[in-house]
Amino acid sequence: MDLNPLKGMRDFEPKDMIIREKIMRIARNIFERYGFDPLETPAIESLNILTGKYGEDEKLIWRFKDLGERDVALRYDLTVPLARFVAKKKRLPMPFKRYQIGRVWRYDNPQRGRYREFWQCDVDTVGSSDMYSDAEIIQVIYESLKAIGIDNFIIKLNNRKLSDGILELCGVPKEKVKEALRSIDKLDKIGVEGVKKELYDKGFDEEKILEFISKDMGEIPKLNEVGEEGRKELEEIADYLKAMNVKFKIDLSIARGLDYYTGMVFEVVVPESGVGSISAGGRYDDLIGIFLGQKIPAVGGSLGIERIADILSNEKTTKKDILVIPINVDKREIIPLVEKLRDKYNVDVSMKRDIKKSMHYAESVGIRYVCLMGKKEISSGRVKIKKLDTGEEKEMDINSVELF
Amino acid sequence: MDLNPLKGMRDFEPKDMIIREKIMRIARNIFERYGFDPLETPAIESLNILTGKYGEDEKLIWRFKDLGERDVALRYDLTVPLARFVAKKKRLPMPFKRYQIGRVWRYDNPQRGRYREFWQCDVDTVGSSDMYSDAEIIQVIYESLKAIGIDNFIIKLNNRKLSDGILELCGVPKEKVKEALRSIDKLDKIGVEGVKKELYDKGFDEEKILEFISKDMGEIPKLNEVGEEGRKELEEIADYLKAMNVKFKIDLSIARGLDYYTGMVFEVVVPESGVGSISAGGRYDDLIGIFLGQKIPAVGGSLGIERIADILSNEKTTKKDILVIPINVDKREIIPLVEKLRDKYNVDVSMKRDIKKSMHYAESVGIRYVCLMGKKEISSGRVKIKKLDTGEEKEMDINSVELF
Repeated sequence: MDLNPLKGMRDFEPKDMIIREKIMRIARNIFERYGFDPLETPAIESLNILTGKYGEDEKLIWRFKDLGERDVALRYDLTVPLARFVAKKKRLPMPFKRYQIGRVWRYDNPQRGRYREFWQCDVDTVGSSDMYSDAEIIQVIYESLKAIGIDNFIIKLNNRKLSDGILELCGVPKEKVKEALRSIDKLDKIGVEGVKKELYDKGFDEEKILEFISKDMGEIPKLNEVGEEGRKELEEIADYLKAMNVKFKIDLSIARGLDYYTGMVFEVVVPESGVGSISAGGRYDDLIGIFLGQKIPAVGGSLGIERIADILSNEKTTKKDILVIPINVDKREIIPLVEKLRDKYNVDVSMKRDIKKSMHYAESVGIRYVCLMGKKEISSGRVKIKKLDTGEEKEMDINSVELF
Repeated sequence: MDLNPLKGMRDFEPKDMIIREKIMRIARNIFERYGFDPLETPAIESLNILTGKYGEDEKLIWRFKDLGERDVALRYDLTVPLARFVAKKKRLPMPFKRYQIGRVWRYDNPQRGRYREFWQCDVDTVGSSDMYSDAEIIQVIYESLKAIGIDNFIIKLNNRKLSDGILELCGVPKEKVKEALRSIDKLDKIGVEGVKKELYDKGFDEEKILEFISKDMGEIPKLNEVGEEGRKELEEIADYLKAMNVKFKIDLSIARGLDYYTGMVFEVVVPESGVGSISAGGRYDDLIGIFLGQKIPAVGGSLGIERIADILSNEKTTKKDILVIPINVDKREIIPLVEKLRDKYNVDVSMKRDIKKSMHYAESVGIRYVCLMGKKEISSGRVKIKKLDTGEEKEMDINSVELF
């Protein structure tokens, strides 16, 4: 029998989960600090809720028939379920600020870094068209990444309306703007020359486009009405971000592949990390209202948990801090001492028969400290803590143990 | 289009998620304190991993064909995936102490309190037959429930081997012990008379059985070898639990419905809560090794997140502590003050146009405090915090705000 997970799926052993739990815990705390509340929706949705929302990626929806022969699907993302939820709850107080962290499924061809099951970590504000909400999403992403411990990231900011104006200035017909944006979005992947070639092949003025999207916003001449609206929005968001002490960079080449963005777009990269963007998002005013047949403004962002986990060096294979090794005593006698250690630390008690096996267990699990407990320790209330990697040993009172 | 979740599935809005997140967060912390590490496995398994493990409940496995026509299934519990994981990782250091919190799916007939999608929260020690491990599982459940804030629960403890001995003493043939146990397990549901009737219908000495399982362990005469082994195990666990200051009650009527338990069994009830057991578990030495074809001892417990959520009165509909309402100022100007509040509290900033609409928003979301911020507050650094339910208002320095 094949004991491996199904194709494109993974077991997350302690070392994998410890880093992911850490990212999710910090994100949750920051999201809540900024007024976002948790939401969860089912893993499975009726198929007709998901179809017609993802463009050509619709083929990746993991659809199946349930035992009652109904057409259902594993959720593809957390955005469409949010749209369904908002439509269902007719009197939801707006703006509705929610975060949702959970796994999604895509029937994709698995390859390095692409799985059929992975976490999404989304934070969105529904029902506000105030640019403060756009800035707040970027702020909450910025604060989350800092708290997680990523310190050399760059937030790149743009606006779809501004891009529309620029592309029109470069001679791209209105109905072909999205096509051009999809090529520009590949800058990271295929480089300037690759994008130029794609734009040329599509019949666009590739030189002019590349020239304009590498300019500073201030160098861009007056644009059409939509373009100027985008510029104004971007300036307003930038002003808020400065007041929020959020570092960012306006980058007119940021396009974001998804068709559904309507205003601000952003992505976050860590230069030379080799992992692509670790966070992205934007304003999407046409998607949330899709089930209600009306416009509901929305803006949101997403943390890429897998990529962030890849960047953080994770030497921890266990959450256990100390392994207590009982020496020639009934385990009942050491319990009061063990519980004292647990006031501050995560403590495991060895079930092995001798010291050597216990030490080997500590090493193979990755526990960094051991504490031998025998009659002497029990009567004196003083214990020796040994740090395994250096061999250093310190004797301490059980009531004031400090790891070193 | 039907916007409700599929049959037997639920949306968890903030008020539902806040209480569940709290339970899961506390459980995680306590589990880690006792040396358990996190594990996660896929939501979907190959069907043949799950079949042959759940007895007559196998019909509840939510099976389907994936897009490659393979037979797969949504995970039914977290125990069989653990068994698969242990079998796959050949050199896992033992004992392997893990916890796993995640959703599982059962294609059951939905009814009050029974869903097709729900959380399980499991903590298990694999590879130890030491009774300390049994006691530790009960200890970690006890400490979790106390930390979660359930205070009137009772842990009821028994041992399958002891039950075997007692039932044999009552004339139940060895091969019918499990049948008798399944009836005894219904005590809570159908009462003493109901159980008596079932036992009688099955041809057992119902009076004698009921008499013996309501005795104290000390009143039970000498049993067969297995029975005495069970008694010895239970006494050893009881001794550990006393040293651990864990309150419990030995109750010989505890059977647990699942066939796979082989030794200690326990369940936790909150008298008069009307929700059944909120936690349960036991030793199951034959299940984990099923994929390896060898015995691997294991003991574990499970917290019933839904039932615990039902018991905890949850008045919180939001994690937001304070709504800041800007009064005739550019929102940029209030940001430094808002960030100060965020040193300690979860703060939302109103996007509404006037005070009345902002107050209404705070009330409908369930935010308990509001803080108006205008020119005066910005220049003085002093703010008024208003408690909405009492109308009480206090002026404080922005650097030392304390909610009241």
